[in-house]
Amino acid sequence: MSTSIRLAIDVMGGDFGPRCIIPAVAHSLRQIPDLQVLLVGDAKQIEHLCNKHQLPSGRIRCIPTTQIILADDPPASVLRGKPDASMRVAIQQVRDGHADACLSAGNTGALMVLSRSILGTLDKIERPAIMAALPVAGKTCYLLDLGANVDCSALQLVQFAVMGAEAARELSGLSDPRIGLLNIGKEVNKGSQRVREASELLRQHETLNYIGHVEGDGLFRGDADVVVCDGFVGNVVLKASEGLASYMQAELRTALRANLVLRCLSPLLHFALRPMIRRHDPGCYNGASLLGLKGVVVKSHGGANEDAFSAAIDRAAQAGRSNLPQRIAHRLGMRPAGSRDTQAQ
Amino acid sequence: MSTSIRLAIDVMGGDFGPRCIIPAVAHSLRQIPDLQVLLVGDAKQIEHLCNKHQLPSGRIRCIPTTQIILADDPPASVLRGKPDASMRVAIQQVRDGHADACLSAGNTGALMVLSRSILGTLDKIERPAIMAALPVAGKTCYLLDLGANVDCSALQLVQFAVMGAEAARELSGLSDPRIGLLNIGKEVNKGSQRVREASELLRQHETLNYIGHVEGDGLFRGDADVVVCDGFVGNVVLKASEGLASYMQAELRTALRANLVLRCLSPLLHFALRPMIRRHDPGCYNGASLLGLKGVVVKSHGGANEDAFSAAIDRAAQAGRSNLPQRIAHRLGMRPAGSRDTQAQ
Repeated sequence: MSTSIRLAIDVMGGDFGPRCIIPAVAHSLRQIPDLQVLLVGDAKQIEHLCNKHQLPSGRIRCIPTTQIILADDPPASVLRGKPDASMRVAIQQVRDGHADACLSAGNTGALMVLSRSILGTLDKIERPAIMAALPVAGKTCYLLDLGANVDCSALQLVQFAVMGAEAARELSGLSDPRIGLLNIGKEVNKGSQRVREASELLRQHETLNYIGHVEGDGLFRGDADVVVCDGFVGNVVLKASEGLASYMQAELRTALRANLVLRCLSPLLHFALRPMIRRHDPGCYNGASLLGLKGVVVKSHGGANEDAFSAAIDRAAQAGRSNLPQRIAHRLGMRPAGSRDTQAQ
Repeated sequence: MSTSIRLAIDVMGGDFGPRCIIPAVAHSLRQIPDLQVLLVGDAKQIEHLCNKHQLPSGRIRCIPTTQIILADDPPASVLRGKPDASMRVAIQQVRDGHADACLSAGNTGALMVLSRSILGTLDKIERPAIMAALPVAGKTCYLLDLGANVDCSALQLVQFAVMGAEAARELSGLSDPRIGLLNIGKEVNKGSQRVREASELLRQHETLNYIGHVEGDGLFRGDADVVVCDGFVGNVVLKASEGLASYMQAELRTALRANLVLRCLSPLLHFALRPMIRRHDPGCYNGASLLGLKGVVVKSHGGANEDAFSAAIDRAAQAGRSNLPQRIAHRLGMRPAGSRDTQAQ
């Protein structure tokens, strides 16, 4: 058994491509001693940048490709076209057992469509979901779905809960993670028909520690370890939170700069506030997992800088080590989501 | 024509009731010289607290009631029961022309149900919506719906846009407010079927300055003056934003206190940061409007303290002066929402 962790990275994805991703890989190779990386993309650029940033040749391998999936390529079209796209070939490395996980900063819809097509979806999972790990109240809160599924059935929400619970067990080491359903009130009669149905199914579920509805503010009070919602709500809430955090940090900087004495003290303030600002920098929790697939796929923000892409490499490495797809499959086999009959226990 | 502004206030609503609301009224009476208040609720408590806080007897009047709508009273039940509830009687003051606006911090669902029943809904409005005014990037962004309508049709979203646009014209003095539709991407093919349909209707609408989809982060960049969404999403986003803002302020305080030098400088920091913190205190923009009714009704947060309730009084006074229901009715008559034919222009 190999003890190293092998990542296939789509070097051509994201707003900044190889010139951001290769130095991030160089940094991560220094931080994670057993990391091995397959760099998938334009061979010439990869070679040049690997030399420039002195990547250790024994721990990287270039897989040359000639096509790139663009940010505005319709997800459906990438299934038929671009057989040699870096994103597609990176996912194939996971399917073919050459990598433990795939990481891309490219088009999210295309990544989801290609991952489903190449890796396949786990049995009993209707649709994969996208999950982020948010730093909340000194802990991690896993939020899903973040946009893969605009309209979700009650049963899908339950499947998300099962997957999120397994992620929290594996990635945060929680034995019995608290599962919440995002809603507009605590009371059982609140929310849409679908959310109320999902709540009922979750309440009946024997292997989930379902704590009931979580409201928007509960998300940032650490009320639950896993919060489940449909992809529309999750996407809007995540982006609104990132937008608000950036806005408040900008307002804080302006307020501090406007005061002459505090402006003189700015090195001290910078030192005192840096840990907090870093902890809440969206870059630090970059890397969303595509759950429900038969392999590990992690999505970086398209606009990630070097530090943020390194954070996504950390997350992909952690997800790759965790064997999460197999664990979710096992959990689904033990107790099918939304059903009370027991199979293969 | 009376130049004073007359508010009917449900004194019994909210977590703290008269002992918070009466001093808030005292404060607002000092701030708003032409304010007249009908205090609706328990006569004994009102009399005692009005004496204690020295409210000017010529500008207040007590309307005694004997029943209270509780936070957990099911909205449907309040229609039949509690004929002498303070909330009901306060709304009746608007219907009967004794007040220009009604303000309550009580049960939101009950307030909506009673307002619809007592005041009625404007022609061409299927369902009223709840709208908040958020302080964003030095301006005000009007967000609706915030929870009155869990599932909205495309046509309802268009009606919300018409109402929000009129509110932005009246309350912010904007001649041509920018209307955005909250969505998970900028592209026209993004979002649920309903959202895409609403987008198409908004694009065809001749009297609205529709700027297209706004993502979660755009909400806090001031991309639009009015942002429209269904009540589920709006409620979750608003509460999540309030939760995140509180959380970040607490983190900031902790970070500053942890540094010995900064702890000594805390009066200076407090002074420098107070305007920013106040600007983003949810209490400062307390007071959500129920739009689409034939009268002005404003909802305060249930947990509002004195300052926050005073902010809601300001908002109710502004809404009461604006004649917003008549203006929305006029606008709907000019150009029916979701339709291109012209009536009564």
